[in-house]
Amino acid sequence: MIGQQDFREAMSRLGAAVNIISSDGPGGRCGFTASAVCSVTDTPPTLLVCINRTSASYQAIRENGVLCVNMLAGRHKDISWLFADRNKTVDERFAGAGGWTSLTTGAPVLLDAACAVDCRVTEVSDIGSHGVFFCAVVGLRLSDKIEGLVYFNRCFHGLEGSVITEFA
Amino acid sequence: MIGQQDFREAMSRLGAAVNIISSDGPGGRCGFTASAVCSVTDTPPTLLVCINRTSASYQAIRENGVLCVNMLAGRHKDISWLFADRNKTVDERFAGAGGWTSLTTGAPVLLDAACAVDCRVTEVSDIGSHGVFFCAVVGLRLSDKIEGLVYFNRCFHGLEGSVITEFA
Repeated sequence: MIGQQDFREAMSRLGAAVNIISSDGPGGRCGFTASAVCSVTDTPPTLLVCINRTSASYQAIRENGVLCVNMLAGRHKDISWLFADRNKTVDERFAGAGGWTSLTTGAPVLLDAACAVDCRVTEVSDIGSHGVFFCAVVGLRLSDKIEGLVYFNRCFHGLEGSVITEFA
Repeated sequence: MIGQQDFREAMSRLGAAVNIISSDGPGGRCGFTASAVCSVTDTPPTLLVCINRTSASYQAIRENGVLCVNMLAGRHKDISWLFADRNKTVDERFAGAGGWTSLTTGAPVLLDAACAVDCRVTEVSDIGSHGVFFCAVVGLRLSDKIEGLVYFNRCFHGLEGSVITEFA
């Protein structure tokens, strides 16, 4: 087994899309920034999200049984930091991020997300410190403009269609 | 539940790193291109790879119990297509991709990979058409140069450090 720091260095080389994971329901509203999101299968349409088991969001999403993956664009770097800031309350995060709506599940949907994927949790596998939430996709909202935000080498890279628009 | 085509369109907006997943052992050598790779936890260092259950690689990797995630760089677009080509045999794929070595597990390691992550499979969860392979990281090989290759909006985007080097 390799060390944690070496593992983190390797994973910093694995580019990944930046998303806000949101949820609401009996376990309470929550939202946080995550790049550990992965498409699993289209049969049936399923994705997964990895969430730290010690986080408040982990418990809330287990209780709510729903979440929304709000894919971010280059213009969302500030929101990305806001939802990653442990010193911000849930209310401060949602208030600072522009307009919200919802689709089928009631999980918060960022109005100007590059793409919002509304999900019901179907299964959770606990792996070490994290839970892997397998999610059936029940709703979608796609922006007309094709945009994305990727985190790679501890930097943001904004993508727009097939053109790179910014990096920082 | 949403339709498969709508799901695929949404997932095309989720940028993801491009990798060659390789394996060798009693189940035979195999290698294929995949972007469904995700960091899970550093406690203990674990990643996951989603593999179609109808593929020959799925069975081989279940038998071998090991795999290597070879992260690609912008200069690897041809190799990426080669290892995604269903008309190419395993031998044709490996012969067409430059030099190979191995680390701890014996899984093939692409010599000039941006980063190679050598793994033992610890658990497999079958989700619909795919298997999710949870993998303990037992070896690493990082390139001196920081590079990556991301697939987004059905296009490749090469990354180099914090600078975008190419897109196609």
